[in-house]
Amino acid sequence: MKLDKLVGNRFRERPSDCVVDSHVYMIRGGYMKQVANGIFSSYTPLKRVTRKIEGILRQEMDAIDGQEVLFPVAMPAALWQESGRYDSIGKELLRFSDRNGTPMVLGMTHEEAAVQLVREYGQSYLKYPFMIYQIQTKFRDEARPRAGLIRVREFTMKDAYSFHSDQEDLQDYYNRCHRAYERIYARVGLPQVISVASDSGMMGGAVSHEFMLLTPVGEDSIALCAECDYRANLEAAACLTHHRRDPVSQPLTKVYTPDIHTIEDVCAFLHSSPEDSCKAVVYQRSADDSYVLLFLRGDLEVNETKLTNYLGCDVHPAVITGESSLHPGYIGPVGLPENITVLYDRSLEGRNNLSCGANEALYHYTGLDMARDVPNAQYHDYAKIQEGGVCPRCGKAAITISRGIEVGNIFQLGTKYTKAMGMTYLDKEGESRYPVMGCYGIGVGRLAAAICEAHHDENGPIWPLAVAPWQVHLCAVRADDPQVREYADRLYRQLESDGVEVIYDDRQVSAGVMFSDADLLGVPFRAIVSPRNLKQNQVEILSRDKTFRTAVPLDAAAQMLAGLVRQP
Amino acid sequence: MKLDKLVGNRFRERPSDCVVDSHVYMIRGGYMKQVANGIFSSYTPLKRVTRKIEGILRQEMDAIDGQEVLFPVAMPAALWQESGRYDSIGKELLRFSDRNGTPMVLGMTHEEAAVQLVREYGQSYLKYPFMIYQIQTKFRDEARPRAGLIRVREFTMKDAYSFHSDQEDLQDYYNRCHRAYERIYARVGLPQVISVASDSGMMGGAVSHEFMLLTPVGEDSIALCAECDYRANLEAAACLTHHRRDPVSQPLTKVYTPDIHTIEDVCAFLHSSPEDSCKAVVYQRSADDSYVLLFLRGDLEVNETKLTNYLGCDVHPAVITGESSLHPGYIGPVGLPENITVLYDRSLEGRNNLSCGANEALYHYTGLDMARDVPNAQYHDYAKIQEGGVCPRCGKAAITISRGIEVGNIFQLGTKYTKAMGMTYLDKEGESRYPVMGCYGIGVGRLAAAICEAHHDENGPIWPLAVAPWQVHLCAVRADDPQVREYADRLYRQLESDGVEVIYDDRQVSAGVMFSDADLLGVPFRAIVSPRNLKQNQVEILSRDKTFRTAVPLDAAAQMLAGLVRQP
Repeated sequence: MKLDKLVGNRFRERPSDCVVDSHVYMIRGGYMKQVANGIFSSYTPLKRVTRKIEGILRQEMDAIDGQEVLFPVAMPAALWQESGRYDSIGKELLRFSDRNGTPMVLGMTHEEAAVQLVREYGQSYLKYPFMIYQIQTKFRDEARPRAGLIRVREFTMKDAYSFHSDQEDLQDYYNRCHRAYERIYARVGLPQVISVASDSGMMGGAVSHEFMLLTPVGEDSIALCAECDYRANLEAAACLTHHRRDPVSQPLTKVYTPDIHTIEDVCAFLHSSPEDSCKAVVYQRSADDSYVLLFLRGDLEVNETKLTNYLGCDVHPAVITGESSLHPGYIGPVGLPENITVLYDRSLEGRNNLSCGANEALYHYTGLDMARDVPNAQYHDYAKIQEGGVCPRCGKAAITISRGIEVGNIFQLGTKYTKAMGMTYLDKEGESRYPVMGCYGIGVGRLAAAICEAHHDENGPIWPLAVAPWQVHLCAVRADDPQVREYADRLYRQLESDGVEVIYDDRQVSAGVMFSDADLLGVPFRAIVSPRNLKQNQVEILSRDKTFRTAVPLDAAAQMLAGLVRQP
Repeated sequence: MKLDKLVGNRFRERPSDCVVDSHVYMIRGGYMKQVANGIFSSYTPLKRVTRKIEGILRQEMDAIDGQEVLFPVAMPAALWQESGRYDSIGKELLRFSDRNGTPMVLGMTHEEAAVQLVREYGQSYLKYPFMIYQIQTKFRDEARPRAGLIRVREFTMKDAYSFHSDQEDLQDYYNRCHRAYERIYARVGLPQVISVASDSGMMGGAVSHEFMLLTPVGEDSIALCAECDYRANLEAAACLTHHRRDPVSQPLTKVYTPDIHTIEDVCAFLHSSPEDSCKAVVYQRSADDSYVLLFLRGDLEVNETKLTNYLGCDVHPAVITGESSLHPGYIGPVGLPENITVLYDRSLEGRNNLSCGANEALYHYTGLDMARDVPNAQYHDYAKIQEGGVCPRCGKAAITISRGIEVGNIFQLGTKYTKAMGMTYLDKEGESRYPVMGCYGIGVGRLAAAICEAHHDENGPIWPLAVAPWQVHLCAVRADDPQVREYADRLYRQLESDGVEVIYDDRQVSAGVMFSDADLLGVPFRAIVSPRNLKQNQVEILSRDKTFRTAVPLDAAAQMLAGLVRQP
């Protein structure tokens, strides 16, 4: 098509509200426009990119025996009540009522709808395994949409649901889908995407992986081991500490510690280190504001995902009132008020000679011996793994923390949904059993943004050929020159009839404007027809990333371009 | 793919809640499943049909210079307040609030979103005309969803919006889009679809057409002239009557009419005919219950669309209370209480010697002369055109009324939205002007249902090749026979490698089950491999509609089938 007719404005100025490059270029390049916070309309260039991504997703899902279906965007709340998620999910699930007052939700994921669709079909073991998927609009009422298409409220997602007669079959299919995902990322130009172990969160199930594009602008933190292949989302990474117990336990001794406010103050005053202190962090359960007290080694931080998974409910940092008998800044494990949930991180297990609060204003203890002084403590992992921390797989202190964009996830859901929703099948022996499920998601818009994050220069996106909005950007510099016009028009028609996707710029604008627009559209190959080139009977052909540049005779240009866009 | 693995159940029983054939077959054939009233999930066969329809829509929209975009499903109410439709549309617009309490709507159409997307782009006359379209999920909270995919609440729609610098350009493009729609219907197998003049309803604008598939199960009524090419939705068809004024006007005479309840009673009692009576119909405005009194010729009915368009507000049939001073059954135009809106249908204009109510219990008038007795009456068209009525175009009494399914609509919107939302452009002379808009919709699921209504037999759908879920249905009868298995497997692989879309039934079920499943899937061509055929070294090939049936040598089957599915 002609660029002249392409709806959408392109401009030079960096929009002030854009913090990541993909957002900048998608606004500056006329790819999309905000309609509301976290809700965008797409112009044609972005629509063409996402359609190509969707085509690749469809091919790879079909290749692993997926069957494309379509679930509704608006669903009755009753369906989500069956699974229990209507109550367990927070405000990101958008709830509303229809004209008859029936409670409804906007689909943010479709496990319930998938079970509803196949509940009658999957009644015999002979039907298994099977996988259904859709590419559909979803809505997740995010509290803080950000970074353009990276975190939005409304988005298009490919979500797939597989059903199996047993865990072993699920594991096989899960691995197969993992490989399909690797092919997808390679095909869209992101072979560097890695999978990391993840927390299953509201989806339920035991095993799950996220696919991450490592980039400083990502909003996830990932723990990577420099010594082995361990990699996990920070939320899910186990935190190990090398325990060290002093040979001799000192007695528990109360110390007057005035003007002490932080763990660093305590350590400085007592001439000890944070590793040798027992820190208290106080939360409240969101439902009833009851206190949850967590002790962990002074240099560690709480991993709130682990904490809420353990508790099975949401919590928030506590606001401590006078009635609580807690003394903020002086809380320790000895002499606590009763009726408070108290948890101990495993970084404290077996430790002695620690400092801690004395549960009395202005006083701390030294010489805390966990085994001696808190004999009934039960230890779990509630701490965040840290840069330089111990790898849970190889045990070496070689963990590094990187940022990443999650561009896909896969979950082994087990029987969470089939059990809750009463979906059963008869096995070979005629026994009634619950099918096990897996689910597999990729957000289309976020993937487009991630591709742009990985492939751009200071002038705009550099779309990989497989997802580029067009394949060739044809520039007629000085289209008012009859020879330029005549040749460029002919080349345009030739390319179109060869099935090449061409965007043709025959506007009478300066070469500078023309090329900066071309950079913003990020089309992989560019052909430049100009009076200067024509004098030499040549067309200039270059790649968007400027690594390839050549001049070819006029009558060879169409063939060369057709060859370039057909390269594997 | 193998039918054995196709998710979804097929069965023989006619579901009791299905009133139209397309609904019956889409449930019986495993095409879809209801999730809530008017909300369905699609299985793979339907998804494949709708994807093919979407492909055709995309091609034809691109061919008339459309640019595919994507608007949000969930939009801020503020956008709909700009156009005024947030208040003017009833409960079919689903309103809700997001987590921050911001009022939102679910998109049922996207005029506002279209204007929002191009408001900055379209600031110069040089940008015009342009057209943008999307294929996207929509939600319309229908009071009475019915007939499967014919009237649903959630649906996929192709909606297009064109922008023009003047009405003449819109008219040209409107005609071009009309022709594109004709091509679309022809390509999906419905060349018999006709366009009819329609009421613009909540969309606004002056000129609009609906595309109708005539069928007794349709929910729209269409007036067609047997003598000329006039055709219009009943809602929009002008009602003309041949006026007849008696040479001599009788005096207005009050008559005692006991036990009179209907217009027929009155006429029998007075020895007159309904054509010679003046009937009263009473409505109330929905907003404040104020009365609206409409008089029309006794044999005609009220066209409520015309009435509400004239009033500019919703009305409902009146509940007449004692305080109103109205005498139900005896209401007439002479001696009415004041403060009531009174309207006169043009069927009464110039008439005399009519009977009518006397606004007094048990009394009627005869000898009503509209000009003499109701001198200030203003006449408009509020009546329904009738079977045998007068054609508004050729004037002959040749109107027939047919039922139809609306499978598309096109509207000339004028400046309704651009004016309300402040979208302007500078014309050649530098004057600021409002662009004029057109909009063009086709519901994908309803079109699939309409195709099924037009193409089926008593055993299931007969999908036209262009939209069929698969092209060839391969049946291996007695797949336990090694020769059948070996040949059928080979033919399957051959067809797949030739790019033919095959559904392969190699289940060990009876030929009866196999063929009735094939009838329900409605695939245009069927190949039957069986021991009996193989003995003759033949494969049986037939069309789903049974008009074509042949036997071909084994080694010619693949080629013949590939040829059949490639026929133009």
